[in-house]
Amino acid sequence: MKITAESIYADVAKIRETSPLVHNITNYVVMNTTANALLALGASPVMAHAEQEVEEMAGIAGALVINIGTLSTSWVAAMFLAAGRAGELGVPLVLDPVGAGATSYRTKTCHDLIEYVPPSIIRGNASEIMALVTQDARTKGVDSSDPSEAALEAARYLNEKTGSTVCISGEVDYIVDGGDVITIENGHPMMARVTGLGCTATALCGAFAAVNPSFQAAASGAMAVMGIAGEIAAEGSEGPGSLQVAFLDTLFRLSEEDLKERIRIGADS
Amino acid sequence: MKITAESIYADVAKIRETSPLVHNITNYVVMNTTANALLALGASPVMAHAEQEVEEMAGIAGALVINIGTLSTSWVAAMFLAAGRAGELGVPLVLDPVGAGATSYRTKTCHDLIEYVPPSIIRGNASEIMALVTQDARTKGVDSSDPSEAALEAARYLNEKTGSTVCISGEVDYIVDGGDVITIENGHPMMARVTGLGCTATALCGAFAAVNPSFQAAASGAMAVMGIAGEIAAEGSEGPGSLQVAFLDTLFRLSEEDLKERIRIGADS
Amino acid sequence: MKITAESIYADVAKIRETSPLVHNITNYVVMNTTANALLALGASPVMAHAEQEVEEMAGIAGALVINIGTLSTSWVAAMFLAAGRAGELGVPLVLDPVGAGATSYRTKTCHDLIEYVPPSIIRGNASEIMALVTQDARTKGVDSSDPSEAALEAARYLNEKTGSTVCISGEVDYIVDGGDVITIENGHPMMARVTGLGCTATALCGAFAAVNPSFQAAASGAMAVMGIAGEIAAEGSEGPGSLQVAFLDTLFRLSEEDLKERIRIGADS
Repeated sequence: MKITAESIYADVAKIRETSPLVHNITNYVVMNTTANALLALGASPVMAHAEQEVEEMAGIAGALVINIGTLSTSWVAAMFLAAGRAGELGVPLVLDPVGAGATSYRTKTCHDLIEYVPPSIIRGNASEIMALVTQDARTKGVDSSDPSEAALEAARYLNEKTGSTVCISGEVDYIVDGGDVITIENGHPMMARVTGLGCTATALCGAFAAVNPSFQAAASGAMAVMGIAGEIAAEGSEGPGSLQVAFLDTLFRLSEEDLKERIRIGADS
Repeated sequence: MKITAESIYADVAKIRETSPLVHNITNYVVMNTTANALLALGASPVMAHAEQEVEEMAGIAGALVINIGTLSTSWVAAMFLAAGRAGELGVPLVLDPVGAGATSYRTKTCHDLIEYVPPSIIRGNASEIMALVTQDARTKGVDSSDPSEAALEAARYLNEKTGSTVCISGEVDYIVDGGDVITIENGHPMMARVTGLGCTATALCGAFAAVNPSFQAAASGAMAVMGIAGEIAAEGSEGPGSLQVAFLDTLFRLSEEDLKERIRIGADS
Repeated sequence: MKITAESIYADVAKIRETSPLVHNITNYVVMNTTANALLALGASPVMAHAEQEVEEMAGIAGALVINIGTLSTSWVAAMFLAAGRAGELGVPLVLDPVGAGATSYRTKTCHDLIEYVPPSIIRGNASEIMALVTQDARTKGVDSSDPSEAALEAARYLNEKTGSTVCISGEVDYIVDGGDVITIENGHPMMARVTGLGCTATALCGAFAAVNPSFQAAASGAMAVMGIAGEIAAEGSEGPGSLQVAFLDTLFRLSEEDLKERIRIGADS
């Protein structure tokens, strides 16, 4: 299957038309901004984390997004309950391993979640993706001295082990699935100065996964839309404050032309 | 009592002059944006949810706003404590039943809260208000096939049973109290693409209820101000990002002229 | 040591160059906006509050910022754990006693935290700083009828007792340490209509404390940068919504010229 500006825009149109419900168990920092990004794109966000209700909520959702950015005991319990229910029902599950590697609590929670229900899509930066691969695996297979090469090795290993589409975001985004690697080279450096745009990318993966059963296509679409909307927004901005505002406006107005003109997508395997 | 642009602006002026303290036990998604809306209008927001302090905080507040958007066990316990104290002291209590009907935990929590302390004002969308009426009541009295008619029936039933002013927000807002129904037809469709503007409406109900003992007048004022500020903001906006920014600016600058020129208020009974 | 526009800009340059990790245990209302302010200035924010990980996170941070704005049992436990670790390792600790004096839970938590690990910097408004001084101390030493004089007395007492640099923010900011009082008179009244700019000031104190071992210089730099960025932002704004956006843009672009032209710094002892 070929992923193009046209195929991605078809997914955007489907999101706008069907407004899929995206259930987020996410961190406090980005709840507002990711809900707004999902709404601006056309999806219906819901945030719910109580153990009493997450299974019911995940059961009616088009996708479940789990983001461990500000995890704690009861939230982790809710993540497992919701993930279990999503797994049973075939609801696409997207995981953002925020800060994996920074503390052992984060790293272990991610390892356990992935083992409990392999996600449809895992999206993180290079160091987070590497932290998902155990030391054992790293010493065996992942020994590149080039960090982006090492992350790519980790993503390949993780994809093979779990079946999850693995997305490494950075200056170049890599979307790894079954030997195929899609690359997206959109975006703008000022995006790194706005909190939670990585988390937003993950949330948009949820929206795309709710309308496209190919998780590699879904993750590629989300990353392309993020990067292109970020580029357009940054061009008219004075700094990260106005970038944020323009980013939501751009998501709302994003056209097939915007995608066609700007997309920088590639594939290597 | 006649509710007019002039009477609503008198409440706005009183809020600006007296800066009533509005105690919010609200959801994580909208804490920042509702605090900002209250400040922009001229009120003093405080967010506090610890069981150790909510009674003390509710006791010094001009109004208490309870919003169940991201409820969990200890937050629900705090909601009951604060509501109980507000009830004892006669502090106006505003309830936003976010997502009632979506999960049984939300529905049940709302039913229990309303039974424990009948709110001064309940504000929700049509499906949330309908979820507050038990199946039993619905089969008896609320059987319209027109959804907005059904919501209105539910609001009338709820008002009669609890004494709460019930506000259904939507393209037309209905503020139901004792047989009288005020309608407000301000607003803009793009407002639905910004997260938490419903929650903001509820928070503003708190500010108005702190300065006006007629809860129907208070809720009508809050809904008119929301709709008019949203209209003005949307007219100058490129999308939901800039709408949010302009909405706060407009609340801050809102004049009696803005209200007089734009208000679309009606009454039927 | 003389604190000047030049010395403050040198700290800004160092923050931009070294991107110190600032670990925040802060309130839900401002998590997003303080993370964005830290990023806009050039620091690296992380928000983490789980008891399982706060010691590890505080241990790798350049500064720890504790803000009690929406405290609860498990968060307070995490604050003590993180503060203890910061104290052991000499990581600068900044405390924001949000709402101290409003409820006894807040007042007592602050007293206990300060006794457990004296902060490097305490920043609050006049009434919060006064609430940190016990009734006993107040009746003994702090009996001015002028509220700003009373707050200054409380700050001096607190500084003497704990060694903490104490910063009272308001129309004039006072940064008290060892008999010396630095005053900063920058800022704009509209800043009071944006939620959490006080919390942002505290977070920026963390960024400055991570690069400057003089905590009085660090707090003075943070307050000057806040006030000046707020002034510049307010000048081009229609209200508190656009002020917020422009504030982040201004922090991102703030130049040595901006500081030199606008700083209103003084010292008395």
